[in-house]
Amino acid sequence: MAKKKEQPIILITNDDGITAPGIKNLIEAAKTLGKVVVVAPDKAQSGMGHAITIDSPLRFDKIDLFENIEAWQTSGTPVDCVKLAVDKIFHRKPDICISGINHGANHSINVIYSGTMSAAMEASIESIPSIGFSLLDYRLEADFTAAKHYAHQIIKTVLANKLDKHLLLNVNIPAVSIEKIKGTMICKQAYAKYKEEFEERKDPHGKKYYWLTGKFVNFDKAKDTDAWALKNNYVSIVPIQFDLTNYPLKKILEKKKLFK
Amino acid sequence: MAKKKEQPIILITNDDGITAPGIKNLIEAAKTLGKVVVVAPDKAQSGMGHAITIDSPLRFDKIDLFENIEAWQTSGTPVDCVKLAVDKIFHRKPDICISGINHGANHSINVIYSGTMSAAMEASIESIPSIGFSLLDYRLEADFTAAKHYAHQIIKTVLANKLDKHLLLNVNIPAVSIEKIKGTMICKQAYAKYKEEFEERKDPHGKKYYWLTGKFVNFDKAKDTDAWALKNNYVSIVPIQFDLTNYPLKKILEKKKLFK
Repeated sequence: MAKKKEQPIILITNDDGITAPGIKNLIEAAKTLGKVVVVAPDKAQSGMGHAITIDSPLRFDKIDLFENIEAWQTSGTPVDCVKLAVDKIFHRKPDICISGINHGANHSINVIYSGTMSAAMEASIESIPSIGFSLLDYRLEADFTAAKHYAHQIIKTVLANKLDKHLLLNVNIPAVSIEKIKGTMICKQAYAKYKEEFEERKDPHGKKYYWLTGKFVNFDKAKDTDAWALKNNYVSIVPIQFDLTNYPLKKILEKKKLFK
Repeated sequence: MAKKKEQPIILITNDDGITAPGIKNLIEAAKTLGKVVVVAPDKAQSGMGHAITIDSPLRFDKIDLFENIEAWQTSGTPVDCVKLAVDKIFHRKPDICISGINHGANHSINVIYSGTMSAAMEASIESIPSIGFSLLDYRLEADFTAAKHYAHQIIKTVLANKLDKHLLLNVNIPAVSIEKIKGTMICKQAYAKYKEEFEERKDPHGKKYYWLTGKFVNFDKAKDTDAWALKNNYVSIVPIQFDLTNYPLKKILEKKKLFK
């Protein structure tokens, strides 16, 4: 008799916290594709980037929140969640790590601020193929129908194809109904970013404080960017790397010999 | 009479907080090269990665801490400092942003966890040439003599040469006396990272908690990496980019047409 093939282990995390609707939708998208284990922050951690917790200890507790799904919550950041999961839970490397579904966009430059993407990147550094999913609707009551559908398809495809042990995809889903979505598009990260404006206010004691606000501006004219794809109702898929070396500039600097 | 040339504006920040010895040494390294303005966190922010403050407002106050130097402290992260400085302080873009000198290494994969480097990256995104400096000695009483010397040389060189409007350098200085340092080396980011081990403890109430610890392991055999340079007593200089697109993988995925 043939040995029964072990099901894939799917690690799920996010940065909106374990009670966010987005993670529930991601669990639903993935649960028929393998054994799902959830390790997520016990509170929202948006904009945490690749923050890790060094100066304080972490809490890490099993929680009965999703039917028939092993789940853990931590007091740490999204990256801490992946580190804890890899060190403390699994007897072997998970087959995939998926993060999200984020409430709000993580395309263009946002990839570097995003806790969702940082958690996925942390797994990719650990040689676990990873995907971050984000829906372009930050509201708690956002409609995840299309996001869930595409997440399922993309996870299934990544599990079925050996692509790269450090595979890391940044997937964003436009906030339109599923009928309007034209499919997926492989993209590059757009040079599009927030133009910050801090709003000044005064507290009841007359002391100033500032809220971060801003307008999103796309400086990138190319048509293979994630910003372009999303504007044209495609699901954008950007392959991401964690080697940040600027190789062309490295070559130039080596030639110029400017630094003694 | 020729118009007097305006001096370069040098924005200084860090992630160890405005009272850390490292930032004082960086000010000393830079102050003869232009008009220095300091905007730094009011407390240590190590390991904050590219975190930004969205859900709470920021305090932002002028502080008289360094002789004849304009200085501001903020309640935010290193990235918040750069955003606030660009929006609220300057009448024009600073000519350079320098971050550090960090107490502790930021080579290899650490570039993505580092608040020091994220602050520099934020400036680079804003088209301000930027450099992050880190000394391989995390102690408060570390000897910054060599770090200060090389920081001065490198800042001077970057100010004197138009290299790239998004120039971003990750500079690490070995923790040895200046006589032992062999010079600088242009490098790539090593694939070297921490192997995490969370240390489990119990609080006085018997509940478990975890401290992040780990061993640094270099998996990279190449001799042009920052890890190699530092081990061999060179100051490592890695040019960094904020476009995280994995272009070779993008090409492969476009060809394979796996995602519908």
